[in-house]
Amino acid sequence: MRSRTFPILVDGQWRPAAGSETFRALDPASGDPLPGEYPISPWSDIDEALAAGARASFEMAVLGPGPIARFLEALADRIERRKTDLVAAANLETALPAEPRLGSVELPRTLDQLRKAAAACRDRSWTRATIDTRTDIRSMYGPLGGPVVIMGPNNFPYAYNALGGGDFAAALAAGNPVLAKAHPGHPMTTRILAEIAHEVAAETGMPRAAVQLLYHFASEDGLRLVSHPLAGATAFTGSRPSGLALKRAADSAGKPIYLEMSSANPVFILPGALEERPEAIAEELFQSCTLAAGQMCTKPGLAVIPDGPAAGGFIEMVRQALEASGPMVLLGPKVLDGLREASARLSLKGAERLAGKREPSDPGIRFYPTLFMMSGARFLEDPSSFQVESFGTLSVIVVAKDAREMREIAACLDGHLTGAIYSRTDGGDDPEYDTIEPVLRTKVGRLLNDRMPTGVAVSPAMNHGGPFPATGHPGFTAVGFPAALMRFAALRCYDHVRADRLPPELRDANPTGTMWRLIDGDWTQGSI
Amino acid sequence: MRSRTFPILVDGQWRPAAGSETFRALDPASGDPLPGEYPISPWSDIDEALAAGARASFEMAVLGPGPIARFLEALADRIERRKTDLVAAANLETALPAEPRLGSVELPRTLDQLRKAAAACRDRSWTRATIDTRTDIRSMYGPLGGPVVIMGPNNFPYAYNALGGGDFAAALAAGNPVLAKAHPGHPMTTRILAEIAHEVAAETGMPRAAVQLLYHFASEDGLRLVSHPLAGATAFTGSRPSGLALKRAADSAGKPIYLEMSSANPVFILPGALEERPEAIAEELFQSCTLAAGQMCTKPGLAVIPDGPAAGGFIEMVRQALEASGPMVLLGPKVLDGLREASARLSLKGAERLAGKREPSDPGIRFYPTLFMMSGARFLEDPSSFQVESFGTLSVIVVAKDAREMREIAACLDGHLTGAIYSRTDGGDDPEYDTIEPVLRTKVGRLLNDRMPTGVAVSPAMNHGGPFPATGHPGFTAVGFPAALMRFAALRCYDHVRADRLPPELRDANPTGTMWRLIDGDWTQGSI
Repeated sequence: MRSRTFPILVDGQWRPAAGSETFRALDPASGDPLPGEYPISPWSDIDEALAAGARASFEMAVLGPGPIARFLEALADRIERRKTDLVAAANLETALPAEPRLGSVELPRTLDQLRKAAAACRDRSWTRATIDTRTDIRSMYGPLGGPVVIMGPNNFPYAYNALGGGDFAAALAAGNPVLAKAHPGHPMTTRILAEIAHEVAAETGMPRAAVQLLYHFASEDGLRLVSHPLAGATAFTGSRPSGLALKRAADSAGKPIYLEMSSANPVFILPGALEERPEAIAEELFQSCTLAAGQMCTKPGLAVIPDGPAAGGFIEMVRQALEASGPMVLLGPKVLDGLREASARLSLKGAERLAGKREPSDPGIRFYPTLFMMSGARFLEDPSSFQVESFGTLSVIVVAKDAREMREIAACLDGHLTGAIYSRTDGGDDPEYDTIEPVLRTKVGRLLNDRMPTGVAVSPAMNHGGPFPATGHPGFTAVGFPAALMRFAALRCYDHVRADRLPPELRDANPTGTMWRLIDGDWTQGSI
Repeated sequence: MRSRTFPILVDGQWRPAAGSETFRALDPASGDPLPGEYPISPWSDIDEALAAGARASFEMAVLGPGPIARFLEALADRIERRKTDLVAAANLETALPAEPRLGSVELPRTLDQLRKAAAACRDRSWTRATIDTRTDIRSMYGPLGGPVVIMGPNNFPYAYNALGGGDFAAALAAGNPVLAKAHPGHPMTTRILAEIAHEVAAETGMPRAAVQLLYHFASEDGLRLVSHPLAGATAFTGSRPSGLALKRAADSAGKPIYLEMSSANPVFILPGALEERPEAIAEELFQSCTLAAGQMCTKPGLAVIPDGPAAGGFIEMVRQALEASGPMVLLGPKVLDGLREASARLSLKGAERLAGKREPSDPGIRFYPTLFMMSGARFLEDPSSFQVESFGTLSVIVVAKDAREMREIAACLDGHLTGAIYSRTDGGDDPEYDTIEPVLRTKVGRLLNDRMPTGVAVSPAMNHGGPFPATGHPGFTAVGFPAALMRFAALRCYDHVRADRLPPELRDANPTGTMWRLIDGDWTQGSI
């Protein structure tokens, strides 16, 4: 029935989607559909949102950073006030624990992101204003001139939500409107966030189409959207096949697209570390692999250890810890399908399944934590097959002959978000570290010492990114302010533009008094 | 005859190319082939260079910035000493004037680029080292882990040469080896530059394959090269069709590619300016259109003026100046073909040819400066046809009904490198400026006031870039140090990496004493 389908948010109005197709979210704990019909938009809805978004991008340029920063801050405050509703909704739709995960970890993180984005927007240092007084040439980063399309993932209903998450905050802080597509796994959570954003946008004087929401559309319409002349750029977090299809479409039209597609997050445990503290590292690996049922983009999917007296005991500790965990509830049926396929593929390719041999009997979408083992020699015969992300509680331990073979494995890695190296506390592994690190360094965005990769701090020095196919470009991060804004910005040079026509960031006087600018080669908060 | 074919430079050795196919350069002034056979490399040459370049990228990481900076500086000095040979070679191969263009403009500019790149390499501020002491997360930009493939254009035999030009300097300064492909229009110039670089590389202790040179290869091998797993990134300056083909290949493999493909560099002359100083602007437009026979990436190919009493006189002045110039020698037969095709296409599409109706009778590759005119209404009927770059002395003047139509024309622009707005000195055009500038701003990398776009200063604030299809990404510049280095860099985060394992840029102590780093949100030259 049309009347029971939720409306979409286009050009400042909640209105019915043009088509009649709908979908429902699922309760992963029971496997049953949740109440509420959400619309699958036909192209005409997208087309209208694009046109409105393009208008909004000009309106936002006139508006300047103040109202945008106020919007982001007010949005954080209002989301905080609606915590109870938001936690209930996300818990129902994702089965992620209400506490501490949703209420005390992810929601505060999301508020922090919105506030940091607001601070970056107001501070203006993110624009990297560069002034060459000798030539009177001045440049800065500015918005793209079109709405940023955001497609968020299933695993962070707030922090990476296309409506209210990190990409959303960064795109707006950089001065762009957002055209958000909800993840179909948590439409209710997204709807509440959009309702809050819509109210706050009106109150803070944002353009009508600064924030728009569609719930779903056909894949081919997604390709058309990201390659549309009116689109500014796209941010996508999700599966590699979807990411690659979107990348192909956007690339063909010369539209920037930032993708976080997959990562096995290899962990190298050097011989001395394995000998020194096998229990501690096994426990850390177990914890990191099972955090949020392994549904983390930085889950260690690949641990590489050297053979030797400590190897067997280490593997056994990890196996036992995983086996002792019950089956875990996953975010949705596609995650389960992916894990089943990955298990079958790994078995077929000769990896040995050590944990996770059972099928859960409880209802809902569940999977037993699963561990595979293989030799370094087998890995090296077919490296591309064994470093594919298995999203969920599935990891592979590779037992290499020695540190030399561990280096060879590092050399066969594709791009990943992270790479960790565990080594002896007293530096006894330094020779091995020095041979593996230079190889691993070029394959990952973030390199860790003696810690697991899960847990991505919202730090200005964070790189949540990495070489292809982890992302689409090795120079950008999706987490951390103000760096995350750079994805949604164009470099704008002003060559002998009259002083009164320059944007405030490029005039002689420092516009905020505290903004950092690069003037004649020196970073300064001063004026000219 | 094999013995007379010049060798290629692979892995530190000048050695014969594997195949037997060759090409010869042309003297554009006579149209005759020049002496000297240059090899067209088969894939095996490229494959070998890629493997050697990949090894060199690790060797350069060990080497650190000092030797690279010394190499770039010594290269500049040695090129300066070989000026006579280089000017003679480039003059012969390109027909660009020996003086002032080659000897007193382009060569000094090239030396300046190499020295600025060396300074950036040594200074380290370009790495944007960011330290968050609260979380002990540190990040910086570093090399890509593979050789940078550079394919330079025909029109700057030194300053944009794949061997010795701006991309070369930037790629090396960022710590990457270079795999250069000569432009077939000036192989002798490129050979001399490579010989100098080879000598200097040996003297300064650079890795064998830090600089490699191939002269030519089949298009399909070029596509294979830029998408090869061992390639770090590609920089290409040239035609749009070639650029798009390379982009497709590199994108499909997730390899960064930076393209400068084409630009019509629109110039908007507002009503008051046209009325105030028609002669001066006509002269500037004429000079800018004919500089280097119009073979500049920033040549104004599109001038938009309002109809009115001054329009006819202005057009007539430009026409007369162009007609009074003799036919101009072009860089090569492809440039001439392109101009003839463009002229035919523009005539067919209803533009009126005002100047350049004759065919040159002299030998060599020559073309009469050509001017087309059309109405704004006609432009708006088919905007994509009339803003294609015509490389060489061909420009289009669009006569718009009024400033409102000028704004509509700006709104129909694709991405271009530059956009200029001429307005009345006393601010009388400010209302028109304020309606056109926000539209034009999002379409161009560099916005100028009251000056023509030719002449790209090597300034730290320069943006020689712009939205697609002028380039492949709106966030990067090909000119200006240190910004140009960012194209050849990956973001590298160090998360709790032990202090003695951090790169010097990220340790507590400032490694140079003057390097700028972003520590806890403040730019500083200090230590922690």
